[in-house]
Amino acid sequence: MPAPPKQSVGIGILGLGTIGTGTATVLLKNGDLLAERLGVELRLVAAADLDPHRDRGIDLSRVALGTDPAAVIHHPQVDIVVELIGGTTLARDLVRAALTAGKPVVTANKALLAHHGDELSALAMDQGVALRFEASVAGGIPIIKALTEGLVANRVEAVFGIVNGTCNYILTEMDATGAELDAVLKEAMALGYAEADPTFDIEGIDAAHKAAILARLAFDTPIDFAAIPVEGIAHLETIDTQFARQLGYVVKLLAVIKRAGERVDVRVHPTMLPEDELLAKVGGVFNAVVVRGDAVGETLYYGPGAGALPTASAVVADIAEIAESLIEGGVHRAHPCGNRTLVPRPLLPIAEVETPFYLRFAAQDRPGVLSKISGVLGNHGISIDQVRQHGRHQGGTVPLVILTHDAVEGKLRRALVEIESLGVTAGPAVVIRVEE
Amino acid sequence: MPAPPKQSVGIGILGLGTIGTGTATVLLKNGDLLAERLGVELRLVAAADLDPHRDRGIDLSRVALGTDPAAVIHHPQVDIVVELIGGTTLARDLVRAALTAGKPVVTANKALLAHHGDELSALAMDQGVALRFEASVAGGIPIIKALTEGLVANRVEAVFGIVNGTCNYILTEMDATGAELDAVLKEAMALGYAEADPTFDIEGIDAAHKAAILARLAFDTPIDFAAIPVEGIAHLETIDTQFARQLGYVVKLLAVIKRAGERVDVRVHPTMLPEDELLAKVGGVFNAVVVRGDAVGETLYYGPGAGALPTASAVVADIAEIAESLIEGGVHRAHPCGNRTLVPRPLLPIAEVETPFYLRFAAQDRPGVLSKISGVLGNHGISIDQVRQHGRHQGGTVPLVILTHDAVEGKLRRALVEIESLGVTAGPAVVIRVEE
Repeated sequence: MPAPPKQSVGIGILGLGTIGTGTATVLLKNGDLLAERLGVELRLVAAADLDPHRDRGIDLSRVALGTDPAAVIHHPQVDIVVELIGGTTLARDLVRAALTAGKPVVTANKALLAHHGDELSALAMDQGVALRFEASVAGGIPIIKALTEGLVANRVEAVFGIVNGTCNYILTEMDATGAELDAVLKEAMALGYAEADPTFDIEGIDAAHKAAILARLAFDTPIDFAAIPVEGIAHLETIDTQFARQLGYVVKLLAVIKRAGERVDVRVHPTMLPEDELLAKVGGVFNAVVVRGDAVGETLYYGPGAGALPTASAVVADIAEIAESLIEGGVHRAHPCGNRTLVPRPLLPIAEVETPFYLRFAAQDRPGVLSKISGVLGNHGISIDQVRQHGRHQGGTVPLVILTHDAVEGKLRRALVEIESLGVTAGPAVVIRVEE
Repeated sequence: MPAPPKQSVGIGILGLGTIGTGTATVLLKNGDLLAERLGVELRLVAAADLDPHRDRGIDLSRVALGTDPAAVIHHPQVDIVVELIGGTTLARDLVRAALTAGKPVVTANKALLAHHGDELSALAMDQGVALRFEASVAGGIPIIKALTEGLVANRVEAVFGIVNGTCNYILTEMDATGAELDAVLKEAMALGYAEADPTFDIEGIDAAHKAAILARLAFDTPIDFAAIPVEGIAHLETIDTQFARQLGYVVKLLAVIKRAGERVDVRVHPTMLPEDELLAKVGGVFNAVVVRGDAVGETLYYGPGAGALPTASAVVADIAEIAESLIEGGVHRAHPCGNRTLVPRPLLPIAEVETPFYLRFAAQDRPGVLSKISGVLGNHGISIDQVRQHGRHQGGTVPLVILTHDAVEGKLRRALVEIESLGVTAGPAVVIRVEE
């Protein structure tokens, strides 16, 4: 006999920061609606925070508040533990403790999942309890549900994501206004679109966390986060966003995840996208992810990638799904992909990746330079699609832009080393990969 | 004790047309992948079609093929019935028969759900078996899953959808090339983007079917399909798509679904959207749906709205979800919204809808006409945002375009009747609603 249905499911939140407060807000504000939809009350029972009693603008008088996360995890009425403290040390211990205690976990912690997702998923599977993390990628957009459930019938071919709103805001503004990165970044900080220390965003680390999570799900494979090639946007200048437009492209920081035979191609870097692609039109702090599957073709998911309430929307969706499975008495899925077996697939080394390239050289303004540079490229088997040369001097040099046809990155890098040694350019070339 | 896990789940397909063949193709081609992901084999056991043995380019040698749908429904090894014959008479009987026999049903049949969705959902709930229909709206895009599961924590405020690829193709081409509707429609037929009898598409009926399904799910309410105001695109001319561009808008056929206090505002009609909105940039045969929720804000879902394999992607996702619940021994959800109670909510009459309006008059080319027309609008409390008057003569008249501020449709219609009676315009005005 299945257990009799429970009329309420108890929620415990670890961390009442922005997302934690947002989650509590949605649980309280839309509690009646959720109870109607789910046939079960989602009851916020307990929460832990370093400063538990600060006024958060919501009524937590019926919630057991304290500073001890273990008390929340082991609270007898807490059926689902929601980890929202962030970081990869304490959070890891707490998620492990909850899973070990047989309690399902919902988390928004992308760093934790990027670094320890394989381990935590395995533990959840062993324990037969759910570990869900919709909010860890692209905030309020239900991209993990789409990828693992909505598109479950598909062999995934590729995933392309604008998954960092800070970088997308900066690139959108550079493109629209011609202002340089430092100025736009200051503005983004003033508007709350960038953190006081924006390193994780600007350097692409945050996007790489999300790439790791998406790649694991898209290809049912463990992912070694440290092996993902990551390049941020700090080196980009508006001269490049402007040349991109002239060539019919827009520069976006993309998480790129592709099937590469038996290997997987996972990387994060600034990417030139054709400007008529829908993904290229995603501006500001918004996120969007394209998923290409063998049956469905191309689909795109767009929405707010951050913010208290959008992120809480995803957290509460995970809570709701687990709550339903708890009251149904069924086995609840430990992994959002059901019983998928993870199969190790090697990462494609970046040197083997083949894309078109945008190259900008600071070239000496004298005859024969283009011929020398294009000669070296040709010797390395790299053919040229377009060339743009402008009279605009920059410290005695002029920008020379070359758009290549598909080229293997390793060959291109060797060609660039040789070009540098020619002595006809100042400094290294600016290199931006192109997706068609 | 829960039942021991089944190692395979049997699928029976009613109708081996385009979608049925696509579904069989995906089940066969990605069968191994699905078995790995789900931990259960999805086995195509039986199928019925008027012409069952026609060569469909796939190996159906291990499938019990026949012409009798009842034999499929009652086949002892068929655990899930997939209705893909279309129409609202036989299909309704067959879906009822399957549900009554205690077998879960997956369907892509939007007309059936629009007309009989309330009845069939109630029957499924009574029987405690699943009825799922992801493929009925927006083809391969998992919009129903997003709306009912991914955004379950939200009070839905509005849904705007481009849900008819034929109309979107036609409007995109009219906008891009300046060709008139009849010419583009012929081209669409030649390309297979429009059916031989395109009435259901062009008149907005197909989009209204999808609007009914989305409205039911968004607001947990029964929907009387016959009461939905529907206007197609047959009357649109490129002069209007061109004026729209001049005013910064694009014309799209939209399904519009909005919360209106305790009532729901559901309608289908050509709509002018600001051209910088992402939804306005969705071109060609593609579909896209915007969902606005109180927690998440605005999200958008884009992809192929039709086609054998994209639609099969959605059908098989539904099959997979039911199969998982069957092997988990849990109660499987009859309704994709879980246990939601449907609460009757009246439709907002179109006369009470308030939007800005685009009005194009064929006006006599003499002084005082604009003054008379704007005077009548003013008398009805309708204020004007912009006016465009062009010297371009059309049979003795010139086009006079007025963009109003928000106006209640009933008042606007009364004003238009009065304007017609002035004798300064030829024929009725072209009226297009605007969404900001």
